Amino acid sequence: MDATHEDEHGTAAAGETVGELGELAVLERVTRRLPSGSPLLGPGDDCAVVAAPDGRFVVTTDMMVHGPDFRWAWSSPEDVGWKAAATNLSDVAAMGAVPSGLVVAIAAPRSTPVAVLEGVADGFRLACAALAPDCGVVGGDLSTSATFSLTVTAFGDLEGRAPVVRSGAQGGDVLAVSGELGPAARGLARLFRDGVGADGEPSAARVVASGADTDPDVARQRRPVPPIADGPLAAAAGATAMLDLSDGLAIDAGRLARASGVTLELDGAPDGTALDGAVPDGTALHGGEDHGLLATFPAGTRLPGGFRRIGMVRDRLPSGGPGGGADGGAASGIDVVRGGVPVPTTGWDPYADWDGAAG
Amino acid sequence: MDATHEDEHGTAAAGETVGELGELAVLERVTRRLPSGSPLLGPGDDCAVVAAPDGRFVVTTDMMVHGPDFRWAWSSPEDVGWKAAATNLSDVAAMGAVPSGLVVAIAAPRSTPVAVLEGVADGFRLACAALAPDCGVVGGDLSTSATFSLTVTAFGDLEGRAPVVRSGAQGGDVLAVSGELGPAARGLARLFRDGVGADGEPSAARVVASGADTDPDVARQRRPVPPIADGPLAAAAGATAMLDLSDGLAIDAGRLARASGVTLELDGAPDGTALDGAVPDGTALHGGEDHGLLATFPAGTRLPGGFRRIGMVRDRLPSGGPGGGADGGAASGIDVVRGGVPVPTTGWDPYADWDGAAG
Repeated sequence: MDATHEDEHGTAAAGETVGELGELAVLERVTRRLPSGSPLLGPGDDCAVVAAPDGRFVVTTDMMVHGPDFRWAWSSPEDVGWKAAATNLSDVAAMGAVPSGLVVAIAAPRSTPVAVLEGVADGFRLACAALAPDCGVVGGDLSTSATFSLTVTAFGDLEGRAPVVRSGAQGGDVLAVSGELGPAARGLARLFRDGVGADGEPSAARVVASGADTDPDVARQRRPVPPIADGPLAAAAGATAMLDLSDGLAIDAGRLARASGVTLELDGAPDGTALDGAVPDGTALHGGEDHGLLATFPAGTRLPGGFRRIGMVRDRLPSGGPGGGADGGAASGIDVVRGGVPVPTTGWDPYADWDGAAG
Repeated sequence: MDATHEDEHGTAAAGETVGELGELAVLERVTRRLPSGSPLLGPGDDCAVVAAPDGRFVVTTDMMVHGPDFRWAWSSPEDVGWKAAATNLSDVAAMGAVPSGLVVAIAAPRSTPVAVLEGVADGFRLACAALAPDCGVVGGDLSTSATFSLTVTAFGDLEGRAPVVRSGAQGGDVLAVSGELGPAARGLARLFRDGVGADGEPSAARVVASGADTDPDVARQRRPVPPIADGPLAAAAGATAMLDLSDGLAIDAGRLARASGVTLELDGAPDGTALDGAVPDGTALHGGEDHGLLATFPAGTRLPGGFRRIGMVRDRLPSGGPGGGADGGAASGIDVVRGGVPVPTTGWDPYADWDGAAG
């Protein structure tokens, strides 16, 4: 199932695969490209030591696997490092915290060119510089595997504030979003449409030949730009609930609604054309991987940073038709409505929907 | 390269693989078996929140991959969960810290029976209960992959003490070890000898038929018992340097010696029979995966917990023959001597030595 990396990255020069070079030499070459941040104690011991000034830290972990989560034919090593950093930084921001460090575990086939790992490291450096300049990679692990994967664990500092959880939204609050809605999903759709060869497999050559390579939506799929700084700004402005839009506005709004026991009423008409500009293809509502922030604020709050209003929080409406909960399905009541019509809050389950043989 | 899990775990009942059940249902079944610990905020939001009472935390991450790091034919799911927890807890202890939480990312083939993930969760619960009762799994991630892997990130609390690093050993200090030396490597050697079928592949049936299944050394390879509590005890007793014995006493002693710029002189004769009882097969010196603790203490320190003296720290001896540094190789001088003879501090490099097709 997993093609070798010689096929995907061209033939590496002699002595230039991780198997040929050995773990220590690879680590030396990769580590110098990573952003170091400012841990109290960096790599080289059994643990790093990171500051937690207010006596707490937030932590999240997320794994990206070649196949279901990314394809070398569609993403460069720099893209993969960037995305792994960005998605984890976004989870930290969604608590209202400032990112304070990352640790990264990579499993790579022995045939992987060392240049691929250097590119992944460059992606981490570029993403941290762009999104969270004070945050670096404070530790890591390198393993062999038949399947390439990265696991990132990210930490953050709440700066003395309470964490902003999903369950705090109250009837009467304003519903707001920060960050783009839709481009990452449109970019992925374009890759599935134009970036696949006659054999049904992802094809880097087709991505270039079709022009998808320079599509701004494809760029956002490859390198999402979550509004990291808006997380702490929202917390400081009094946000009552917040989460990262990883799976799409509809499904993530459903999660916030169920956790808080409220109904979220989106502004605009049922067909969605009024939401966040005219986006008639549904990706603003159902497209994932943009990693914007969805938050609720007390009525009258001056919305901070890039947040703009997209709706209101209502006391929970009873179920009366379609549109009930998807996660678990046990919560009764309506999660999300627009123009009086419930919005389906179903979304993507990697186990249920992913066909490992396709795309 | 990676066999399917139907082959390795028997055929799961209908609806009982992770692919059939779906991510949310799997998470629900797995999460309830995990140790919860006592985070300030547990799973269910974008991040967990963990206490860091003295304003710092230690962090380490480590990945275990099916194939190079474990085989289902040799280890049960409970064994794999136990070992993943124990090895990370040991890195926390080696800084002198008390484990305060774990996050776990698992990638599993769709064909994996849910019972396998439940078993892994049971292993985490059993290991935390035995080794670090206040520590639990505060967050995680579940992904699909052609290759089963677990990435554990562990945190710890220094309780106001300075972290015990590798570089603090001083000439005149006592060299001491806590935990067993050798059984995990002897257990692995037994599995390679007696647990392989006629086709050269690991065989659960052969493990049982050969009696290896009840060998105490095999039990230690499957479920190492690192002396977690001795880490903070060593720090409190004034340890000047410490590390986790993951790759064997010789190579890890070499790391400590080079980091500190000293030579470590082991007690006993050059053939090693005097070290830690009579262990003539060399596993006490060169066997890995026991995850004991190696530490140095000022002369005259009453050794805490399970620590016992195995040698002395000397000012660094100049190179004069074999036995120089292995890691990097640039450090001149002798790392480890015994009976006046340098001890080779070479060890296992997963990239250089692992043959993915064997064992």
